[in-house]
Amino acid sequence: MPLSAPHETVEIQLGDRSYPILIGSGLLGEPGSFAALPAATTALIVTNTTVAPLYAQTLRAALANRFRAVHVLELPDGEAYKEWQTLNLVFDALLSHGCDRKTVLFALGGGVVGDMTGFAAASYMRGVPFVQVPTTLLAQVDSSVGGKTAINHPLGKNMIGAFYQPRLVLCDLSTLATLPPRELSAGLAEVIKYGPIHDMAFLDWIEANIDAMVARDPSALAHAVKRSCEIKADVVGQDERETGLRAILNFGHTFGHAIESGLGYGEWLHGEAVGCGMVMAAHLSQRLGGVDEAFVQRLTALIRRAGLPVVGPALGVDRYLDLMRVDKKSEAGEIRFVVIDKPGSALMRGAPDAMVREVLAQCCEKKS
Amino acid sequence: MPLSAPHETVEIQLGDRSYPILIGSGLLGEPGSFAALPAATTALIVTNTTVAPLYAQTLRAALANRFRAVHVLELPDGEAYKEWQTLNLVFDALLSHGCDRKTVLFALGGGVVGDMTGFAAASYMRGVPFVQVPTTLLAQVDSSVGGKTAINHPLGKNMIGAFYQPRLVLCDLSTLATLPPRELSAGLAEVIKYGPIHDMAFLDWIEANIDAMVARDPSALAHAVKRSCEIKADVVGQDERETGLRAILNFGHTFGHAIESGLGYGEWLHGEAVGCGMVMAAHLSQRLGGVDEAFVQRLTALIRRAGLPVVGPALGVDRYLDLMRVDKKSEAGEIRFVVIDKPGSALMRGAPDAMVREVLAQCCEKKS
Repeated sequence: MPLSAPHETVEIQLGDRSYPILIGSGLLGEPGSFAALPAATTALIVTNTTVAPLYAQTLRAALANRFRAVHVLELPDGEAYKEWQTLNLVFDALLSHGCDRKTVLFALGGGVVGDMTGFAAASYMRGVPFVQVPTTLLAQVDSSVGGKTAINHPLGKNMIGAFYQPRLVLCDLSTLATLPPRELSAGLAEVIKYGPIHDMAFLDWIEANIDAMVARDPSALAHAVKRSCEIKADVVGQDERETGLRAILNFGHTFGHAIESGLGYGEWLHGEAVGCGMVMAAHLSQRLGGVDEAFVQRLTALIRRAGLPVVGPALGVDRYLDLMRVDKKSEAGEIRFVVIDKPGSALMRGAPDAMVREVLAQCCEKKS
Repeated sequence: MPLSAPHETVEIQLGDRSYPILIGSGLLGEPGSFAALPAATTALIVTNTTVAPLYAQTLRAALANRFRAVHVLELPDGEAYKEWQTLNLVFDALLSHGCDRKTVLFALGGGVVGDMTGFAAASYMRGVPFVQVPTTLLAQVDSSVGGKTAINHPLGKNMIGAFYQPRLVLCDLSTLATLPPRELSAGLAEVIKYGPIHDMAFLDWIEANIDAMVARDPSALAHAVKRSCEIKADVVGQDERETGLRAILNFGHTFGHAIESGLGYGEWLHGEAVGCGMVMAAHLSQRLGGVDEAFVQRLTALIRRAGLPVVGPALGVDRYLDLMRVDKKSEAGEIRFVVIDKPGSALMRGAPDAMVREVLAQCCEKKS
């Protein structure tokens, strides 16, 4: 049964690893959404204790005709659980249910569930198929698309993982109605990101529609998801394994990861840290000559209007630098930043320590 | 500086993941062995407490001119340590030494070190380059070649891993001189394997040279390593991710994994379990009509002459069946076996439970 519900499709073009992103309302309850998946005996829905009561049974019912058995595993909710012991619960479930090499995993939840389920799928029996069913704005516009999977290590975020593409991404826009306001804002950070690095016309659109998105206007959110996925598809299609271009999608993330790791995972949401990190990265870009003061102020104002923090926590400048040195983009101990070289264009480069220190001093609360 | 020491080369042809296997004596102490590796600031040699005192400093010295820093990590020795907590020691070392995306990992040791280091390389920052420096016969003829990496899970062997190819495999034949006799025999099991599944002329050669190999005749071992790598290269080149043909390399492994897992990892060596498992698989092949009694006796005698067990431990038939059902080759609960369909040719198929029970009853010690 093909999918009859209204939806839009964005294709990720990666040769034999290509797959569609389906975007629409109510898709996760439609059996037709899954018509193109490979046949298998069993499926495992991995979700968390927050999302499960809302959507797990709906998804399970939609899958009932395709699989002889559909199991559901609820993980604890939060970035603090994106680590090995929780990941191992997925392997325990797969093995105790007798899941084989054809078993399909479904990641039903936000970025944490998607990253962990994806890495579990990449690693179980050296790789089984998986589907992303993102239920947060952040996961729909960014983390569920492009095949980056990982868990955290106490010494660094996303340090253990794989590039492993899903077979399908299903962005069900109706799930955004149940999203807590803080999570909605966190997702908007990743939407905003696509403007300065790639598409100033989209930045204009975001500015004109930020209040509508904060108020959850469905058509505004639908456009934001679609345009974000298009940009991500374009970038990932050119550089799947981040040997170059793809790194620009990490705008704000070097500073942001330091905030997340420095405060302890889960204290700030990933999107909150990225929002604040983009303010810092914009200041750094200005000092490096890529953008002017007005651009920095414009971006900062937009991030604030999205409900995101724009001042960094008082970790201390030295601690920020230590944390950023273990970022995956670092090479030979040099921290590398994504900066805007001109509005709508980004690149990765190093920066003098003294300059980074000035940016941190300017953008963070003072240590008391 | 290119490699001037005498050596032979077998190429693994996998498009942009192709790499050479260099085979010769004394190669791990030759800087020229590593001439074609990508440039990097740091290297990490992962080895174990048994192998480190023998070869770690030699390898380190050979790498000293290529890398600004060469770190060494010693893991505890044994299949029992092929699990997450020990793997995590590799990630701890990589992060605490500030290793980046270009850091090259070297697996110096046997199959356990190779499988774990390979999976660590596949997963650290979503993939860094790695080199296999196998120091056991088993690793030289089988496990270091072809990109299968994994750790064990309490519920099944090699259940968590990745297909991830090394940049280079360096088979230094002089390491075989220090190998304990039991390890040498274990390696011969995987050499013998290539005969019945792919090359009966090689089986004739093995029969004629088994005593020489047990006595560590260097030229006999050199030929065994080279021909084994050639056959493995041929099979892996046709089916990297084991969608079909590659499964024949698991001849004897379904039974063997059950023995390893049933006795507790490390009780029998992997190669011992595979040797005994091949006897069982040969009996099953006979019952299925692929080979005759004389073939079974011939293979059993050869396995015995290699110093390997040919009678299975008394786990009980039901326990064997339960353990085999969680094998990666199982599908929808059906156990699948690699069997000889005619001498020199193998395929994967199911078998009636009653027949498998008869084979187990015939080939195992009776439960007291």
